[in-house]
Formats: sequence, C-alpha cells, structure tokens
Amino acid sequence: MTDKPTLAQLAEQLGARLRLAPGADAGLVPSGLNTLQDASDSQVSFLASANYRRFLAGTRACAVLLTEELAAECPVSALVVDDPYYAFARATSFYDTAPHAPGIHPSAAIHADAEVDASACVGAGAVIEARARVGAGAIVGANCVVGGGSEIGAGTRLHAGVIIYHGCSIGRDCIVHSHTVIGADGFGFAPHGGQWTKIHQLGGVEIGDEVEIGACTCIDRGALGNTVIGRGVKIDNQVQIAHNVRIGDYSAIAACSAIAGSATIGNRCTLAGGAGVVGHVTVADGSHITARTLVTKSIDSAGSYSSGTPFSDSRNWRRNAVRFGQLDEMARRLKDLERRLEILVAEGGQSREKE
Amino acid sequence: MTDKPTLAQLAEQLGARLRLAPGADAGLVPSGLNTLQDASDSQVSFLASANYRRFLAGTRACAVLLTEELAAECPVSALVVDDPYYAFARATSFYDTAPHAPGIHPSAAIHADAEVDASACVGAGAVIEARARVGAGAIVGANCVVGGGSEIGAGTRLHAGVIIYHGCSIGRDCIVHSHTVIGADGFGFAPHGGQWTKIHQLGGVEIGDEVEIGACTCIDRGALGNTVIGRGVKIDNQVQIAHNVRIGDYSAIAACSAIAGSATIGNRCTLAGGAGVVGHVTVADGSHITARTLVTKSIDSAGSYSSGTPFSDSRNWRRNAVRFGQLDEMARRLKDLERRLEILVAEGGQSREKE
Amino acid sequence: MTDKPTLAQLAEQLGARLRLAPGADAGLVPSGLNTLQDASDSQVSFLASANYRRFLAGTRACAVLLTEELAAECPVSALVVDDPYYAFARATSFYDTAPHAPGIHPSAAIHADAEVDASACVGAGAVIEARARVGAGAIVGANCVVGGGSEIGAGTRLHAGVIIYHGCSIGRDCIVHSHTVIGADGFGFAPHGGQWTKIHQLGGVEIGDEVEIGACTCIDRGALGNTVIGRGVKIDNQVQIAHNVRIGDYSAIAACSAIAGSATIGNRCTLAGGAGVVGHVTVADGSHITARTLVTKSIDSAGSYSSGTPFSDSRNWRRNAVRFGQLDEMARRLKDLERRLEILVAEGGQSREKE
Repeated sequence: MTDKPTLAQLAEQLGARLRLAPGADAGLVPSGLNTLQDASDSQVSFLASANYRRFLAGTRACAVLLTEELAAECPVSALVVDDPYYAFARATSFYDTAPHAPGIHPSAAIHADAEVDASACVGAGAVIEARARVGAGAIVGANCVVGGGSEIGAGTRLHAGVIIYHGCSIGRDCIVHSHTVIGADGFGFAPHGGQWTKIHQLGGVEIGDEVEIGACTCIDRGALGNTVIGRGVKIDNQVQIAHNVRIGDYSAIAACSAIAGSATIGNRCTLAGGAGVVGHVTVADGSHITARTLVTKSIDSAGSYSSGTPFSDSRNWRRNAVRFGQLDEMARRLKDLERRLEILVAEGGQSREKE
Repeated sequence: MTDKPTLAQLAEQLGARLRLAPGADAGLVPSGLNTLQDASDSQVSFLASANYRRFLAGTRACAVLLTEELAAECPVSALVVDDPYYAFARATSFYDTAPHAPGIHPSAAIHADAEVDASACVGAGAVIEARARVGAGAIVGANCVVGGGSEIGAGTRLHAGVIIYHGCSIGRDCIVHSHTVIGADGFGFAPHGGQWTKIHQLGGVEIGDEVEIGACTCIDRGALGNTVIGRGVKIDNQVQIAHNVRIGDYSAIAACSAIAGSATIGNRCTLAGGAGVVGHVTVADGSHITARTLVTKSIDSAGSYSSGTPFSDSRNWRRNAVRFGQLDEMARRLKDLERRLEILVAEGGQSREKE
Repeated sequence: MTDKPTLAQLAEQLGARLRLAPGADAGLVPSGLNTLQDASDSQVSFLASANYRRFLAGTRACAVLLTEELAAECPVSALVVDDPYYAFARATSFYDTAPHAPGIHPSAAIHADAEVDASACVGAGAVIEARARVGAGAIVGANCVVGGGSEIGAGTRLHAGVIIYHGCSIGRDCIVHSHTVIGADGFGFAPHGGQWTKIHQLGGVEIGDEVEIGACTCIDRGALGNTVIGRGVKIDNQVQIAHNVRIGDYSAIAACSAIAGSATIGNRCTLAGGAGVVGHVTVADGSHITARTLVTKSIDSAGSYSSGTPFSDSRNWRRNAVRFGQLDEMARRLKDLERRLEILVAEGGQSREKE
C-alpha cells in the first residue's frame, strides 16, 4: 500500500465521476471508509443497496460512492459509479494497513536447495524445505512451512502459520490465511481383517491464480492424481476439501463447508456456510447451495439447492420432530383414508342413486 | 499455582465448613480431585448432582464437597458448601499443573518496537511484531504470532501456536488455546463480471476480559468496524466467528458452532455444539440454542430454540426422509380430505334429514 | 522409503502371483500407481470394484492387481491377489515420497530435561518441553510443540505444526497431521452468579498405537480422567473430540465429525463426515453413523444410523420445510379424520342397515 489517495485520485482510480459539494476540496485526503451511518467527515462512504438509501441524507461522510440515479440526493460530494459495491471493494485496497516484515528474517530456515526469489519476504521462524520455490514478491509469513518441492506463485501471500506439504503448487496472487493446511494426506484406508491399512496419498494439490483461502482450512492431497482448485476461487475459514476434489473457476465456498473425496464442484458455484457435498458427486456450474445443506447426489443443472428443517422454539420443535419418525406411517394412513373415502363416496353415490 | 492446600486450607479457600470424619486430619494434603466412584483416599471428591448421590456411601475419597443437606450421609470428611459444583470448579485451580516456560526464550523474535512487560513470558519461536504490546504477567506460548500493533492484556495466556493478526486487542485474564486465529480477513468479496473482487477487511477484533477461547477457533476481523467479543465469554474449539459479529457478555459457545457475518448474540446466551447463526440476525439475551440448530431469523425473546430431525436406524430414517419431500403434497391432500369429508358429512346429514 | 521395487519384488512384497504378459519383464521397475483409465505403461494399476471392470480391457498399465477370477481378462501382466484393494493399499507405501528433514534441526528448542531418542528427528522450530520423551525413529515436524512430560511413541510421525499439550501420550507408529491440537482444555465451566468459573482440566489424553489423525483436529484433555483413543483408530481432518471421550479400537471417524464430552464410541465403529454424538452417550461396537447424523441417545446394538432431511431445489424444499413446523398439527388432523371417517362408516353402515 502506498499513501492514501486524495478525493480526486480516488475518483480516478475507481473510474468515478467526482461531483464536489459546495466548498469541498478535491485535494482532501480521506482517512478511510465507513458506512453511511458511521462515517465521520474525513471518511468516504458508499450506497450499494436500496436498504441504506434512508441513511444518505444524514450522512457526515466527506464523499459517497453511488450511482448517477441517486447522486442528486447526496448531501455531500458524490463519487458517481456504475456499481458502487464493486467500487467500494476496490477502494478498500487503498486503506488496508496489513503489515508484513520485509526481507528474509534471520530465524527463517530456508533449505540450501530451495529457491526463494530475491523480492520475496520470509517471516520469522518460517521453514522452506528442499527444492521448494517461492516466486517474486511472494510473502511467506512467520512460522509458515513450505514443504519439499512445493511452489508458491509470484505475488502470493501466506499469512503466519500456513503449512503447505511437499509437492503442492499455489498459483500467483493468492492469499492464504493462518493455520490453513494444504496437502495433508487424504483419508484413505483399506479395511483388512478388522483393521485399516493406510493408502499412502501419492497425489498433490494444485491451486490456481488469485485464489483466497481462509484460516484453519484443510485441502488434502490427492490419493493418486491431484486435488485441484480453479482460478479465482474464494474459500472461507474451516473448510474441509478432501482428496481429489475439483473446484471450478470463480466458485466461492463459505465457512465450515465440507466437500468429500473426488467430488467435483463446477465453475461459479456458491456454497453457503456449513454446506456439505458427499463424495464422488458432481455439482453443475452455477449451482448455489444454501447454508448447512448436504448434497447427497449429483446436481445436473444450475439452481439453488437446500436441505434441513426450520428452527423454532424447542417445545414446538420437539412436538414436530417426533412426528418426523412417523412420517412414513402418516403417509400410508393418509393414502388409506383417501382410499376409504373414495369407497364411501362411491357407496354413498350408489345409495343416493338407489334413493 | 503454588503448593497444594491442606484440607483446612482448601476449606478456607472455598469458604467451606470442614466437618472432619473421626480420626481424620485437617492437615492432610489431598493429592487431587476425582469422582465419587474413582477417588482414592488421597483425593477430594464432590457431589453436585442427585444422579451421583448413590455413589456417596461407597466413596473412598478423603473428603467430599457437598451441601449441608447431604453432609449427614457422607461417610468421610465433608466440605460443606452452598454450591458444590462451583466449589469443585474453584478447587480445580489448586491442582492444575499446566506448565509454561518462564521468561523470554532466546529464539522468540520480538520486534524492537514491541512492548513486552518485564513480567510477561514469551515462548520459543514466538513472534511479536512491531508496536504490539504484551501486558504484565501475560504468557505468549511457543510459536505464537502477535501481529503489528495488537495488544495482549495483563494476565492473559496464549497457548502455543495462537495467531493474532495486526490491530486486534485481547483483554485481561483471557485464555486462548492452540492454533486459534484471531483477526484473519472476513470473507468479503464483491461480484463483478463473473469474478470476485476482494473487500479488504479494515476493522479489527476486540476481545473483553476473562474470555476463554478453545483450539482451532477463528474470529475474523471486521470489514469496517470491529468484531466484538464481550466480557467473560467462553468459546470452545473449532468455532467460526465471522466479521463484525458481536457476542454479548458471559455467553458460552460450544464446539463447532458458527456465527455468520454481522450477527449479534446477546448476553448470557448459550450455543450448544454445532449451532449456527446466519448473518445479520440478532439473538436475544438469554437465548439457548440446542446442538446443531441453525438460527435463520432473529430471536426476539429468551428461550430454547431447536432445529433438525431425530436420528434412527438408517432403514427407518430413509423411509421417513423420503416423505419429507412429499410433505407439502401430503398437507394439501390432508386438507382436501377434510374438505371432502365435510361435504360427505353435510350430504349424509342432508340424506339423514331426508330420511 | 527405499528404492522402488521391480514387478517381481512387488509381487513378493504383496504376496501376489505374478502372471507376466507375453514379452513382459519381471525386472521392470514401475514408476508408480494409477487408475486403470489413467495409468501409463510404466504404472501399476488395480481392479478392486466391479464398477471399474469395464476399464480393464483398455488399460495401458504395465501390470494390474486383481483377483484370480478376473486375471484371464487382464490384457497386461497380472498381479493376482485375494484382496486387490488391500494389496493396492500396501503397494502405495512403496511410492510415498513424503520427505522429512533428518536429525535434529539446530533451530529446534529441546529442553535439557527432555529425552529425545538418538534415532528420532526433530524439525526446524520445533519445541520439546521439559520431561517430554520422543521415541526411537519418531519424527517431530517443523514448528511442532511437545508439551511438558508428554510422550511420543517410537515410529510416530508428527507432521509440521502439531501441538501436544503437557501430560499426553501418543502411541507407537502413529501419524498426526499438521495443526492438530491434542490436550487443550476441555470446555468445562461452572455457572455462578451469571458468570462462568473455569473447571481446570486435570486429566490428559492417551492415544493408542497405529492411530492416524488428520489436520486441524482437536482432542481435548480430560477433566479428571483421560480422554482415550484406542488402538488403530483413524481420525480425519477438523474432527472435534471433547474431554473424557473414549473411542474404541479400529474405529474410523471422518472429517468434521464432533463427539461431545464423556461420550463413548465402541470398537470398529465408523462415523461418516460431519457426524455428531452428544455428550455422555454410548455408541455400540460396530455402529455406522451416516454423514451429518446427530446421535442424541445411546445406541445399544450395531447397525447403521441416520438423521437429517434430503436436499432438493430450494423452492420445493421451502414448501416442504414450512410443513415440518405443522407436522404435529397434521398428525392430529389425520387422527381426527380417521376418527370421523370411522364414525361416518359406522353411521353409513347403520343407515345401510336401516335401509
């Protein structure tokens, strides 16, 4: 990050049209970003959803990112853009102060056979094993471990404590958060004589460019081939991705989701928090899986998919939940009632006919 | 921890009335604590639930924490208290042998601009970044990382491998278990042209005093403002707390629970294991969420809340589960039956009237 | 790992009968293993399931592990065995290239009172605390922490970043993957005056021989006695095992499962991904819990157990899910209909009798 931009520079960077309020100065350097409600007069805000329009008139922000349509209502300087949420997202990059230690910390343990680009940074206590490669401008955080022969693409940042096993590759311009583990063994055992024989996991993990992965997430290495994460995929915290899973480009997977072995997720899918996908199934491009849904069969066409039951107060829930265990019986009794009513109606008809 | 207390000292510390069994010695130093069934004659036990009363007569413990009401039944020395479970909890502190390395380990990497109190301990391989502050008596375990400008309150213990990102504050007398990550980026991206643009997470994390957090838990930094954990909150292992969540004082959150972005949990709530709360909702003070329940709407009043279905053998479960997908149809057929029966009864009445 | 075996050596190691294809050479050194479809002519494959039989005729593998029954169909050299999947599992061990740094890395911090066997390896940045013991041939990965007095059995491998608290014991020939935490405090607090008083967790963790544990898994120490994991148990990633849980020999627990405090899982049980078991219940030997099932009561006999609802497109799901909240009412209305129909039939009968 360089110096913070002036309003004029911000407009230029974001492709925004700056409409200054009376007396406002395009040379002002905003201190940061905030919501319409909470912004101080040194902060820029944004209006990206109709829900927040009611806060526009009262905002104290020095400027607001919004559409042409709403600019007339803006009581302060306006930064007019087509897509205010996207512009806001881009603007956040100017205010991110996440620091990192420069250079190679003397306590990092870099194997003599590893290749670390001269422009890369390696934090205290980090370990780079034999034949590993760290690309230009990459940042390997404190206490990270990059296993033998693994590759970290240019511009990628591993936050502190990330562990990459041997034989894995991470693309360019990725971000991996702390304590994520990439390349641990998939869970594979052959049963034999009432015990389990380990299937050594001989594949690796391949992660595309511009992927972000949250904290404490696990992506296992493949059993034979690789586990593959496509380009631009975004993965949240505590996600479990098993061996030989394939995730298509630009899919997004929210926290606590889990994808079992050899499942394939298409491009541009979204999995909401706690979603699950069983092994060996395929999820079509553009599918959306709602929170805590368990996908137990392949999904052939884009759409939104759900499972689960609604929550309620526990007393009512118990009353209804106990009936879940009687559902099949209820369905049979319903069918039986229908049959008996048919007969009765038929008989009634007959008796009426007889009348 | 200091030396173990004698029976008399234990009574004094816990505010218990010591009623010695014949021949017992108030100067005895018990070796530890155990259940009524398993205690040896050098261990103290406790009776905190009616379920265990049947074990009292046969206990070999040297003394038992119990209420006045049950003291007469105690075959050994009694430590009479109002709340035996609370007294037991307090007693455990005298027998905890969790060690920690004293002082600052020479392999710790402490930035010249960090402030570490002279009475704090920093373990091997720990990293304290620029402008971070570690309070009096705090313990930073082996291989922990405390990010730039973050603050660890006095008396707080970070077990080995905890990672605190930059700009976060942890209160006084907190305990954080291994591999928990505090302050990683929230999961925020703006969709644009079929790809995802990162929303840099500019807020921090604020954790109150006397908070305990389990292992492998994630608490993300806020997008704009902070993620806030109140005073005395207890959080278990593998819990996911997303950006801008607020958790009220003295709430307790069991393992594998997940709280999505900007949700607010009130004071003195409990979330049982695997509970989930979707984003942007509010859970009222004093709410109790049962295991694996997903809260999908705001909860306005204290109470117990549940979702899910009961488990059964898989064959029966399958029979009933398939009916779940027919529920709406079943409800319509039920309504239709009721309508038809009404008609039939009306007609029958008419025909009876005609008779 | 030693040099890769020739076909003849592979046959000998696996107890396979080698039936060479015309012109094939028993002295060939295969490069590795692969599926029937993907194997090159330098790779060995296997046929372990009837589903894959159709790929046998077209395989380019240099040899295939299969049963006598199918050997006649094999277009290349056959390695005839009784159980091809088990033979494949054993064969994977010859091709596993997972490296580890030899010896004791100079940056490891080994306490003067720790006992590390001369044949053990300790990676960079690892910390071995006072009175800990590391057995013959054990490997402690980079940045691991082995707490005071804990014991790592002979031949056991801790991958990078594993944390073992004080007073825990890990058996022989175990594998523990990165960032797993063993021995953190169980989640135990006594409520008192609207606050929580910590119950210090005085027990430890005992793990049997030949146990494998995945990445980011947590096994908490016992409150009073130990948490106990039996011999040959296999545990996947992100599993949560609470204080005083007992898991019987040779059970397997898939990713994201969670077992609450003091639950007992029998021998040779399997928990599929995301399974849950509430506290204080017992699960009988040989039980199988399907994915995401929550076991809320003790299971007395072996069998398969399930809970949850099927997934569907969200529109249909919503229609059905809303009916879940009406189930009890539906059941009552169904019963009422049956009663009323009975009356009607009885009356009809009477009226017909009267006719």
